[in-house]
Amino acid sequence: MPVELPVVIDRTSPVPLYHQLAEQLTRMVEDGTLKPGDHFENELALAERLQLSRPTVRRAISELVSRGLLIRRRGIGTTVANQVVHRRDELTSLYEDLVRSGRTPSTEVLELRTDAVDERAAGALGLAPDTPLVYLERLRSAENGPLAILRNWLPPEYGDLTSERLAGGGLYAILRARGRHPVVAHQTIGARGATARERRHLGLAKGDPVLTMTRRAYDAAGVAVEFGDHCYRADQYAFDITVHER
Amino acid sequence: MPVELPVVIDRTSPVPLYHQLAEQLTRMVEDGTLKPGDHFENELALAERLQLSRPTVRRAISELVSRGLLIRRRGIGTTVANQVVHRRDELTSLYEDLVRSGRTPSTEVLELRTDAVDERAAGALGLAPDTPLVYLERLRSAENGPLAILRNWLPPEYGDLTSERLAGGGLYAILRARGRHPVVAHQTIGARGATARERRHLGLAKGDPVLTMTRRAYDAAGVAVEFGDHCYRADQYAFDITVHER
Repeated sequence: MPVELPVVIDRTSPVPLYHQLAEQLTRMVEDGTLKPGDHFENELALAERLQLSRPTVRRAISELVSRGLLIRRRGIGTTVANQVVHRRDELTSLYEDLVRSGRTPSTEVLELRTDAVDERAAGALGLAPDTPLVYLERLRSAENGPLAILRNWLPPEYGDLTSERLAGGGLYAILRARGRHPVVAHQTIGARGATARERRHLGLAKGDPVLTMTRRAYDAAGVAVEFGDHCYRADQYAFDITVHER
Repeated sequence: MPVELPVVIDRTSPVPLYHQLAEQLTRMVEDGTLKPGDHFENELALAERLQLSRPTVRRAISELVSRGLLIRRRGIGTTVANQVVHRRDELTSLYEDLVRSGRTPSTEVLELRTDAVDERAAGALGLAPDTPLVYLERLRSAENGPLAILRNWLPPEYGDLTSERLAGGGLYAILRARGRHPVVAHQTIGARGATARERRHLGLAKGDPVLTMTRRAYDAAGVAVEFGDHCYRADQYAFDITVHER
């Protein structure tokens, strides 16, 4: 049974009606009001209920279809498509993104060491290349199964971190609790074939790709807080970014 | 022979010296002053010439190593790593990015049609789902070989575009010349295995991944200018983005 959506249209606003509708529908998909597989109130019913023209409603829906949030299938109607976690271009942790979109993240700690020497990570943290760093590798899953392998390097001061603490939530909450509040990050996004180990943990087949992201995060004083090198199941994950002309 | 780099250090600035050096070196890699494979003036020589301490120079270089711009190899020294096109988070065309980084882009038009019906693209362009659109598919290469397959949908008004015009430069220059100036775009970045056709054009092997980007670009009035669905060789391409806490 399609959900009757709580849309509010403001006819006094200069924002085009189709855009008001598209924005509210997008938010409902993103915040989990509309869940993957949900049937979508049909165009005609939505138009009548909101007293909008059919072309206006169709244009709003087409916009969500074009963004990959809805799927329109002949004979089945329109359903919410979004199995993919859309990571927005603000500094959030995957854990928080999942919670916010109504999903249930879980964490398995695959590795936790305090003697990791890694020049690339040390450079990113602004430390001498041979500084022993805290290294953690976590498998992040949601209800549909494994989603990402998260590898992070932290300064030696985090030597007391435990697997129990890491399994109980997201890393960023731990950093913030210690007064190291990440406010800006430089991310590099790429892709590569999954390694055998990654395939095993992520449940992938040979030849399946992973989406990769390295992240250098800084606090308000510009001090490096963490260095991460993560990989995500490409069939379940995407990055959304908005870019402007310089 | 290592290049002697034109670095200027401002000792009266509140910006840390290592950061001044790292930023200038980054710019040189990005604008092509430093080219992939270039040998890098060694730490000691650079420190002496700029009258900086060795730890300061080492920290700056480590930062570039951590960003994947330099590679440090025992016995070989430090060289410029960047075979990967780093796409920054501003609205630019791949063509312009390549030119700006000192490379020589070329374009082969694989397909050009004026009767493309595509609901997703039409929705992104704000047009009725059955509008016949102009569809172009281009293979973009640089001196090292093929880099990306670019697929774009444009409104019917571009029906007079020719393959010759498209082969001579970037699409954004054409859009701008017609007064449709893209100023903002929403991009979704993902990864997937390459199709057989993509492998053939991009020179990839079975199981190689591609990095994907869909883009919806708008002009200053908020009118959709183009919809693109592109794929890139994952071994030669990455997106750099800076994200902030909301």
